[in-house]
Amino acid sequence: MEVALDKVTMDQVPNEVHQVVAPPYKSSLQKFITKVKETFFPDDPLRQFKGQPLKRKLILGAQYVFPVLQWAPSYSFKLFKSDLISGLTIASLAIPQGISYANLANLPAILGLYSSFVPPLVYVVLGSSMDLAVGPVSIASLVLGSMLTEEVSPSEQPDLFLQLALTSTFFAGIFQAALGILRLGFIIDFLSKAILIGFMAGSAVIVALQQLKGLLGIKHFTKKMALVPVLSSVFQNKHEWSWQTILMGVCFLVFLLVARHISIRKPKLFWVSAGAPLVSVIISTVLSSVIKAQLHGISVIGKLPQGVNPPSVDKLLFQGSHLGLAIKTGLVTGLLSLTEGIAVARTFASIRNYKVDGNKEMMAIGFMNVVGSTTSCYVTTGSFSRSAINHNAGAKTAMSNLVMSVTVLVTLLFLMPLFQYTPNVILGTIIITAVIGLIDLPSAYLIWKLDKFDFVVMLTAFFGVIFISVQLGLAIAVGLSVFRILLQVTRPKTVMLGNIPATTIYRNIHHYNEATRVPGFLILSIEAPINFANITYLNERILRWVDEEEATINDNLCLQFVILEMSAVSAIDTSGVSLFKDLKTTLTMKGVQLVLVNPLADVIEKLQKADEVDDFVREDYLFMTVGEAVTSLSSLMKGQSPTMEEEEAQKIVTEY
Amino acid sequence: MEVALDKVTMDQVPNEVHQVVAPPYKSSLQKFITKVKETFFPDDPLRQFKGQPLKRKLILGAQYVFPVLQWAPSYSFKLFKSDLISGLTIASLAIPQGISYANLANLPAILGLYSSFVPPLVYVVLGSSMDLAVGPVSIASLVLGSMLTEEVSPSEQPDLFLQLALTSTFFAGIFQAALGILRLGFIIDFLSKAILIGFMAGSAVIVALQQLKGLLGIKHFTKKMALVPVLSSVFQNKHEWSWQTILMGVCFLVFLLVARHISIRKPKLFWVSAGAPLVSVIISTVLSSVIKAQLHGISVIGKLPQGVNPPSVDKLLFQGSHLGLAIKTGLVTGLLSLTEGIAVARTFASIRNYKVDGNKEMMAIGFMNVVGSTTSCYVTTGSFSRSAINHNAGAKTAMSNLVMSVTVLVTLLFLMPLFQYTPNVILGTIIITAVIGLIDLPSAYLIWKLDKFDFVVMLTAFFGVIFISVQLGLAIAVGLSVFRILLQVTRPKTVMLGNIPATTIYRNIHHYNEATRVPGFLILSIEAPINFANITYLNERILRWVDEEEATINDNLCLQFVILEMSAVSAIDTSGVSLFKDLKTTLTMKGVQLVLVNPLADVIEKLQKADEVDDFVREDYLFMTVGEAVTSLSSLMKGQSPTMEEEEAQKIVTEY
Repeated sequence: MEVALDKVTMDQVPNEVHQVVAPPYKSSLQKFITKVKETFFPDDPLRQFKGQPLKRKLILGAQYVFPVLQWAPSYSFKLFKSDLISGLTIASLAIPQGISYANLANLPAILGLYSSFVPPLVYVVLGSSMDLAVGPVSIASLVLGSMLTEEVSPSEQPDLFLQLALTSTFFAGIFQAALGILRLGFIIDFLSKAILIGFMAGSAVIVALQQLKGLLGIKHFTKKMALVPVLSSVFQNKHEWSWQTILMGVCFLVFLLVARHISIRKPKLFWVSAGAPLVSVIISTVLSSVIKAQLHGISVIGKLPQGVNPPSVDKLLFQGSHLGLAIKTGLVTGLLSLTEGIAVARTFASIRNYKVDGNKEMMAIGFMNVVGSTTSCYVTTGSFSRSAINHNAGAKTAMSNLVMSVTVLVTLLFLMPLFQYTPNVILGTIIITAVIGLIDLPSAYLIWKLDKFDFVVMLTAFFGVIFISVQLGLAIAVGLSVFRILLQVTRPKTVMLGNIPATTIYRNIHHYNEATRVPGFLILSIEAPINFANITYLNERILRWVDEEEATINDNLCLQFVILEMSAVSAIDTSGVSLFKDLKTTLTMKGVQLVLVNPLADVIEKLQKADEVDDFVREDYLFMTVGEAVTSLSSLMKGQSPTMEEEEAQKIVTEY
Repeated sequence: MEVALDKVTMDQVPNEVHQVVAPPYKSSLQKFITKVKETFFPDDPLRQFKGQPLKRKLILGAQYVFPVLQWAPSYSFKLFKSDLISGLTIASLAIPQGISYANLANLPAILGLYSSFVPPLVYVVLGSSMDLAVGPVSIASLVLGSMLTEEVSPSEQPDLFLQLALTSTFFAGIFQAALGILRLGFIIDFLSKAILIGFMAGSAVIVALQQLKGLLGIKHFTKKMALVPVLSSVFQNKHEWSWQTILMGVCFLVFLLVARHISIRKPKLFWVSAGAPLVSVIISTVLSSVIKAQLHGISVIGKLPQGVNPPSVDKLLFQGSHLGLAIKTGLVTGLLSLTEGIAVARTFASIRNYKVDGNKEMMAIGFMNVVGSTTSCYVTTGSFSRSAINHNAGAKTAMSNLVMSVTVLVTLLFLMPLFQYTPNVILGTIIITAVIGLIDLPSAYLIWKLDKFDFVVMLTAFFGVIFISVQLGLAIAVGLSVFRILLQVTRPKTVMLGNIPATTIYRNIHHYNEATRVPGFLILSIEAPINFANITYLNERILRWVDEEEATINDNLCLQFVILEMSAVSAIDTSGVSLFKDLKTTLTMKGVQLVLVNPLADVIEKLQKADEVDDFVREDYLFMTVGEAVTSLSSLMKGQSPTMEEEEAQKIVTEY
């Protein structure tokens, strides 16, 4: 094993030793500006303006604010044909889903249609995604409804409830736009994929459970959302179950599920699942008006007001005891709907290979919700399911949203009386079919395979949502994820490196079996930034490595150098600097020298600054690679004590 | 510039290419156990028991639980002489400080002496530090007093206040011991040095301001702690100022400060500052009894009860409306006093080169406070100032605490009547002199020099404590520090690497001026674990590098390979895996190949697992070093398009 050292020393390493130097000088202000740029403007949004004439800059600026100007000038009839088809397709889905989701949010059904009319119009002008289908979505509806119901009963105080919903929408919009303007969009990155999968599956279960009310025809249903109260409510009210409602529900549910299955099997038949809800609504409405459904205990939607969205600025509440609730609800639903919208936009942008600017998209969605809150719309965003159908139906630009919006407008103006006899049970079946798509078992299995901790986070989100509440389940899962990051920082890996024979490469000896130790050296790699949260640990851990090393090593081959490979230490703070001071002191007492290899720009700079005060980083114990360090220091060992070195050499020879 | 490539290709690189392999197989359970061990048992506390006979194991076990057994058997008269001197020295300081700090906590003065008697006895048996001087300390006293005063007035409900103080002490002890037992001691690491310096300076100001009451002889003083209310209270009650009190206070303050200054200048004269408070107390007491101080408006301590600590188990409150406050106060003061105690113990352990086990020390301090709460003591820990004097006075073992304790006992039994005429103003001067030592300007300056963000954190703690409150100031500063860590994770550095001429070393081109780009390659180093919080950023940032690269590069020398150097990517989660999938797809569309260099054990393992599902990491685009990657891929480029390569070579020649 020890032969490796000699080979390395003799043949492989470059003769020259390369100096580690401090990076070129930059003032604190320059560094601060760079940092702010990298943190808040990683995409460098002003890049395209550089070096352009003023007129071009103005055009680019206008296009930046209103992305519609990017595609509208070159818009053609051919594109419009595609957008028309996809727009009509998503409209046929948006109308029944809109009514259903408003129901889910405990809001009047008509709000679902209002929310499918105005927000898409805003999005056409401001949005940069070509595939997003905008409107109310299941998760935001569920959360909005459940959070507001905690304080205000939608059946007892419907006006206040509506006011709070609109106010929450307003705050959601303000919050979303603020995130975009302040370029804090990375906050939604903390909802990791694992969390979202668990959260969405949990929400799907909760939403589906809520539909048992409509599906079974129960009249006295719990206002709670969690699994236990809902199930107990279902079975306590067995006497209210209506077999006519159940029969109708099951039939249409089977129909919708089959349609969904067909579209999944053959993606070209996307229109089967896209059209099925509207077909269900039409058939069931005709059926219910023919058989006089109400007489058989099947509840129907009832009269809906005709006409476009009434203004609702006067309904926004900026005072009173429920203001806090409205703000909180706005925050949570805003964040959730933003996450859904951005995720959908990014997914399809990457499929069609165009770019979506996250921060700009947040401003668009935020502004859309602010406008929505003044025109009787509740929280909207880009929907997972409808955007997929929009994409599959061949949407080319945001124009498909305009087509959908116009279709909804026609419905609002002329077709509202037709919904009078639509049975409520149909809305339930439409929701259930929609939320089944939120349960993503293959991804859950992949997470289980790849990362057990992520799987635990996913389960936490899932069970948290089901058994506690939607917000708390989400909060706990996010907390767990952040805790994991902090744990990684608090307990960074320290890895022992060995030489890959016949090279100057040093790698983890527990990873590469061929890597061999170099006698007299302890080579450790630290794999995290060093800061206040981990210096105590690192100090203890490194000294334990040294102790263990000294315990196993033969007296003649005693430990002389501890080499810290710092390539992975991306940053250091003042506490981190003190770690090296302390280590140096402790190791010197043991007669061992501390050697640093490849400290990165920031790190070497800070170490050298601290060094001006107390002299603890010696230039001759600073190397660019482990290979050069080992070579140089080995020759030093030889130079210092030739007799001892000879003894060692003798020993190595006799051992092998 | 580009000549470097050829040189590298021809002479320097090893001929052989080294395979990146997955680490040896370990089951999920094995990994989990390793992880738990590294996280909670980094010091491997059972190491010393391994391979020992049973009897030895029992002895070691007893010594582990009662560290007194480690030093007591070999204790000698010579050691005792040192401990006696240091014990008497700290007792002379502990008695006046104890009374003063109890005052600061709005508790009866006698509690300060009680707390200097029992806890040291417990610590002698359980503590592993040889230098710690145990007793009440200024910061914990301040925080305890200020937090409890928020709900209960110490002057109107003194009994309830005392009960709450003892209950808080009980919870502080439980919490401290629990942190040690559950091995969660790393939580106190989140109070970084920068936070502590700002926090302690702020506390010193707050504490000193509180002393204005005693120093000016004001009777009606605000109960608030923050700067603004205290100063306005001082100036609103100008008519209560007593010149006799002020004169006496200023004289003794000057005396104490001069004594402090002498000891700082000549550390050998440590006894000057150690003895000065007791001397002040004696002189001022004699003076005040002679001149009948009370008649001149100088308030005195008054009668104190004689005798040892009365039991106080019956005073602990485990119900009622204030229980929450007691628990909260216990948590905060427990954490703070633990931080102080552990920091002091570690400092002196590293000076004298022995080891202090953080978790064990937490159990000792925690148990000490639990016992204390049942014997009329409030929160105690190892004091910064008295431990320093203990060390300077030559303390050898924890025995000096025993000496101090006995001295306090003698005082409690026989000397209490002497304090009757001690003026309150003297306590104020003693506290001010003690807390001045908490303001550490040189360290603050060093932090400013090393790390501007740390400096901001420090200022936040300082001003937060002064203007808002002790707890909130601390909480905001900790929040800011954690935010920084999260920001580092969310916005990891990506650095462009270049070749150091005539070597196979690749380093940051913005750090090493001589590092040169290799045409056709974009070599990036990612300097953080890859996870949900940063994949969006990394994806955007890497693609921006590629775009910028493609914009600047000449058509003939087009970008062919993006090499990601992953040595600093210490971990990856499922989201991180998807980043590589996405990158691979996007880059392939651009006709660029993604090459990974040196993924660490965990990372390569997860990538390969995900690879079984979708094939995206090709073995031939995986290398152990950047040098090998560049060499191999350059020869590939040559092989693929010899004419283009020749053109390039031509171009390089003509350029130089």
